[in-house]
Amino acid sequence: MSFKSYLEALNKEFENHTYGENPTELYEPITYIMSLGGKRLRPLLTLMSANLWLYNWQKVLKPAMAVEVFHNFTLMHDDIMDQAPLRRGQPTVHEKWDTNTAILSGDVMLVAAYELLGHAEDRYFKQVIKRFNKTAAEVCEGQQLDMVFAKKTDVKKEDYIEMIRLKTSVLLGFAMELGGILADADEESISLLNEIGVNLGLGFQLNDDILDVYADPEKFGKQVGGDIIENKKTWLLLDAIEKAKGTAEEKTLELWLSKKKFDALEKVETIRAIYDKFEIRADAEAEAKTYFSKAAEALNKLNVTEDKKELLRTFAEQLENREN
Amino acid sequence: MSFKSYLEALNKEFENHTYGENPTELYEPITYIMSLGGKRLRPLLTLMSANLWLYNWQKVLKPAMAVEVFHNFTLMHDDIMDQAPLRRGQPTVHEKWDTNTAILSGDVMLVAAYELLGHAEDRYFKQVIKRFNKTAAEVCEGQQLDMVFAKKTDVKKEDYIEMIRLKTSVLLGFAMELGGILADADEESISLLNEIGVNLGLGFQLNDDILDVYADPEKFGKQVGGDIIENKKTWLLLDAIEKAKGTAEEKTLELWLSKKKFDALEKVETIRAIYDKFEIRADAEAEAKTYFSKAAEALNKLNVTEDKKELLRTFAEQLENREN
Repeated sequence: MSFKSYLEALNKEFENHTYGENPTELYEPITYIMSLGGKRLRPLLTLMSANLWLYNWQKVLKPAMAVEVFHNFTLMHDDIMDQAPLRRGQPTVHEKWDTNTAILSGDVMLVAAYELLGHAEDRYFKQVIKRFNKTAAEVCEGQQLDMVFAKKTDVKKEDYIEMIRLKTSVLLGFAMELGGILADADEESISLLNEIGVNLGLGFQLNDDILDVYADPEKFGKQVGGDIIENKKTWLLLDAIEKAKGTAEEKTLELWLSKKKFDALEKVETIRAIYDKFEIRADAEAEAKTYFSKAAEALNKLNVTEDKKELLRTFAEQLENREN
Repeated sequence: MSFKSYLEALNKEFENHTYGENPTELYEPITYIMSLGGKRLRPLLTLMSANLWLYNWQKVLKPAMAVEVFHNFTLMHDDIMDQAPLRRGQPTVHEKWDTNTAILSGDVMLVAAYELLGHAEDRYFKQVIKRFNKTAAEVCEGQQLDMVFAKKTDVKKEDYIEMIRLKTSVLLGFAMELGGILADADEESISLLNEIGVNLGLGFQLNDDILDVYADPEKFGKQVGGDIIENKKTWLLLDAIEKAKGTAEEKTLELWLSKKKFDALEKVETIRAIYDKFEIRADAEAEAKTYFSKAAEALNKLNVTEDKKELLRTFAEQLENREN
């Protein structure tokens, strides 16, 4: 199996899936957000994980979709909270419809995720739901921490890592674990899959933060420097604040972080120059690398043949080296 | 067992229950809304239903709580959508904190409801979750219909009944059904319990609408006439519009429904006078009675001894004759 055939199978399943009929005002936004695309990273991880053991991975399709539906539910609600106008270049649901619609369609998407998990075979069902409950609560905790950090002045790099672990990584961990559970893997393997997913998630998010500052604008697909413009307390900014302490750049950083009116390009270039001076990019890349390495180590430990692992290994490498 | 002992057991369990610890900003609003009280109608129905067969009803406590937590999740999100400042006389969560907090705490409450359902014994678990998924989606559909109806001009009484069936009644149906499932009741009984709950819910909501117009202000606990002030398309208003067609009151109704500025008391008194003229209250009471009668009939059919049914029968009568 290749990524492409997994992705095609997934997308076909999404196209044929009905979330509900009436009232249309409730269900149309779900079809809309799900049609905006995206990498389908999470369900792909579920399918690839299941396929380490399972030959008929098709029976994992619906539960795998649950993870993507849940992810898009969080995007729909996060976009309200962040007042984001665009998602994947298209109007967000609360912009295209309204906030109330985005709240309620999001709610029913969360229910739809549970419903899709209901396609798991009976003997795995309770374990799946219990683990999903924990994961879903953690994702909410991560989003809350993200909002708390926006208003907090003394955020540390390790706080940021804990925030993205909850907000982003545990769901990748669950996605992989789910594949293992449904493929009847042993407990140790299930736990290793979770470890791989969580570490891939951490590396993935750190890469995201690096790309937000350093991506090639032609390949990136969205505005480069968005995090800098918004004073988003990413690992890079927190690292820069730490390293600039006691230097001339400390004041420059403070000044730009407190400016209410500024030229966006000038702000991005000034802050990026400070990052460059303190080699923040190399720091962040090294940090990301530790997580990708942990993921690779856990993958090594998995008790399946090398040829079975190849696809996941390639996928992890692509995540590590992506340019958009 | 008496209502009082059930209610005490429930409230004790709620007091001792922890929804989560960190971040506190996420979990405090849950403890807050759950502490505002309320009748605990839904989990009481679960406990009473289970006790038709079961002696150790305590093991149903946690799943019963799930229904109440879910109900309060819907209140938290509905209050945002309705821009309601008060809930049970206290500030709503989005007022006391902010909208983002109310969205996210609500989300994690929905997860908490699933988590509490996880206390159901394994052999019932899948059935419980599947039925809950359907119910939860229907409640969202009902809330969406409610919002759609607010902007729609040609709502019929039967549309209104379908809306409250989804928004309010199916959850009472599920609450009772859940008790039956967990008490290992036969399928026919489980289906009858659902029928009792749904019909009690319809009667309950219609009574609510009647009380909103006709309650004794001293007993009611909130502003009488709220629905009239807001042009809420309740069964009473829809009945009045229907009966006033072609009479002098048709224009008076239209006039008051379209007024942007008005004296609230004057509006309530004018519309209530029209209701009185067309005997709307008697109509609505008769309509409510049909549902309470259906509930009573279904209760009669239940294959358990009369003494076992007594508590539920009394409870249903109290719902039918309540003054607040």
